[in-house]
Amino acid sequence: MLPAIPDEQFQRGDVPMTKREIRVFLMAHAMVQPRDIVWDIGAGTGSLSVEAALRATEGTVFAMDGNVEACDLVRSNALNFGMDNITVIEAKAPAALAGLPDPDVVFVGGSGGNLSSILAEAAKRLRPGGRLIITAVLVETLHDTLQFTSQLEDFAVEACGLQVTRVEPVARRHMLRALNSVYAVICRKGGQ
Amino acid sequence: MLPAIPDEQFQRGDVPMTKREIRVFLMAHAMVQPRDIVWDIGAGTGSLSVEAALRATEGTVFAMDGNVEACDLVRSNALNFGMDNITVIEAKAPAALAGLPDPDVVFVGGSGGNLSSILAEAAKRLRPGGRLIITAVLVETLHDTLQFTSQLEDFAVEACGLQVTRVEPVARRHMLRALNSVYAVICRKGGQ
Amino acid sequence: MLPAIPDEQFQRGDVPMTKREIRVFLMAHAMVQPRDIVWDIGAGTGSLSVEAALRATEGTVFAMDGNVEACDLVRSNALNFGMDNITVIEAKAPAALAGLPDPDVVFVGGSGGNLSSILAEAAKRLRPGGRLIITAVLVETLHDTLQFTSQLEDFAVEACGLQVTRVEPVARRHMLRALNSVYAVICRKGGQ
Amino acid sequence: MLPAIPDEQFQRGDVPMTKREIRVFLMAHAMVQPRDIVWDIGAGTGSLSVEAALRATEGTVFAMDGNVEACDLVRSNALNFGMDNITVIEAKAPAALAGLPDPDVVFVGGSGGNLSSILAEAAKRLRPGGRLIITAVLVETLHDTLQFTSQLEDFAVEACGLQVTRVEPVARRHMLRALNSVYAVICRKGGQ
Repeated sequence: MLPAIPDEQFQRGDVPMTKREIRVFLMAHAMVQPRDIVWDIGAGTGSLSVEAALRATEGTVFAMDGNVEACDLVRSNALNFGMDNITVIEAKAPAALAGLPDPDVVFVGGSGGNLSSILAEAAKRLRPGGRLIITAVLVETLHDTLQFTSQLEDFAVEACGLQVTRVEPVARRHMLRALNSVYAVICRKGGQ
Repeated sequence: MLPAIPDEQFQRGDVPMTKREIRVFLMAHAMVQPRDIVWDIGAGTGSLSVEAALRATEGTVFAMDGNVEACDLVRSNALNFGMDNITVIEAKAPAALAGLPDPDVVFVGGSGGNLSSILAEAAKRLRPGGRLIITAVLVETLHDTLQFTSQLEDFAVEACGLQVTRVEPVARRHMLRALNSVYAVICRKGGQ
Repeated sequence: MLPAIPDEQFQRGDVPMTKREIRVFLMAHAMVQPRDIVWDIGAGTGSLSVEAALRATEGTVFAMDGNVEACDLVRSNALNFGMDNITVIEAKAPAALAGLPDPDVVFVGGSGGNLSSILAEAAKRLRPGGRLIITAVLVETLHDTLQFTSQLEDFAVEACGLQVTRVEPVARRHMLRALNSVYAVICRKGGQ
Repeated sequence: MLPAIPDEQFQRGDVPMTKREIRVFLMAHAMVQPRDIVWDIGAGTGSLSVEAALRATEGTVFAMDGNVEACDLVRSNALNFGMDNITVIEAKAPAALAGLPDPDVVFVGGSGGNLSSILAEAAKRLRPGGRLIITAVLVETLHDTLQFTSQLEDFAVEACGLQVTRVEPVARRHMLRALNSVYAVICRKGGQ
């Protein structure tokens, strides 16, 4: 087993995907357990959904995205990896969250403009010890998330920017190739 | 449990320490299993040794460093975390590796000038499926490691630079604070 | 002449200083001309004030900071570099800006909580073709600056984060040492 | 005038181009004067050649590249910017350097495998006070350049990695978009 799935094993289309090195970091923080309920909000290609489903072997991953193309990609990728514990929900959060079981882990990778209500719902519904992980590639998402988390009580919060430079072999030499910057905000409920 | 131990829980002295966000990434790649044998070469403060020992509950971590102060720190940190599966070896690699059992995981964080012979010995002795992980903060270490790994057969190799920016709360606002850059080269024996 | 003054030539105390590589970038964008009027708001150590004064040989640099220690440092550094075209103003912006001549270049490195009124005043008072350059090490400063600049008319605006890694010689080898991340927002009045 | 030309004003083809933020930094260090002789070795698209030619109004820029497509691009870009002080040389360095006048500024952006002999020739031929600037996107280029420069006498040398993140407006918000990492090694002859 690998710490994360290679990028090229996912179908992507034109939907942005969380790159492998970032998934390694996010999944380490998510600590998905076999029976966990996982919400992946703004699932995009579903790369985090698949990673989570590989670990929540007896649990369920709810992958939500308001974009049709994204939902098709999540289904394709779930199928390709043989994951039958991923439920795709073609709808916008937070409305679509109401009917779901309370989560152990929530990823927020996109919000469709409803960031603060999504975060409020996720924080409220998260089970004790649960992890809420927001990724941001927009200054506004980072800012608004930090505004929200700085008022959270009973959560441990940490945040960092991740700038990964791949070192790729090219004709017996090694080229530096930067991945896009991602900020991650990680919240643990009731925890240190 | 956390994905990695907070920095301030380690005693450090003047010895450089692998910061928490980097340890999260390295430990995700190391995938230490309960019965694993781990070599931590150039152990420094022993932060990776302690992380590995927490996971190799029935295995052994051999922490090696040619520096007396570093070895004292590893012992202190092992004691503080209650780890009795860490053996500190105050000697330089590769000479001191001869008497050790073959490893499942090898970290190389310092080489005392013997990088190529350490890497050769580690690669040879590593068990099938084992992981060899080199961290570099010197251009020369990165370069020489890549020269070595580009000639390895039967290993899957990947490398990247990690630039982490901590987002720290300061008086109701959030300051960006860069950690030092680290390059990581990760080699999996006999693996994809 | 050098593109920017080495860090160690400034007196610093405990006041944060804009590092040399960042000053190279900021001064290239500031394009200070010999007769320019420059405002350096939140001057800190005065490193940008001194750089600007070296170029505005027949102009004036107004260095403003609400912190007494900072103002003393700016005076010391101005004296050490023999700059008699730096006027230190121990007061908070924007109140203290009223009596100053209109600027060709404005640096905003600190705002004491008055960012939006400082930016509004600077943008209004800036001469045609003038440059307004904001540096941010807080997420909130970056965010609020971008909110302000996105509503500016008749300004060309660009922004970027700068992550510099120094490559320092150490015992015949070269160590990577990250400087702190800085975001820069650059606004040119009436310009392309 | 701008501190550097916007990327989209250059024709590029498939040849990699030094991005604007990096050119701002490199040109600040190059300090090209009106009568300077500039060598641009491994000129690529010619973006640095055009920047240099804008400043060396009474001097000459020799743009050299062993790649035919690159040379065509340099000619196109020189023409588009109306620069008649750029001479394109379709040949490999260092052989083609023999007939050129001694330079005030040398850029090395590619070496075609002859890095050490190019650097030796450039350092020898550089005029007193001249600047030799190497950019590296390969680990091997950075390493070999540092090996060369650490043995240079009578040169001041500094090096850094530049990781720029553009902050781009997208639908009233601001997206972080990383440029590729570049290392720059800057050598000043006979200088501090």
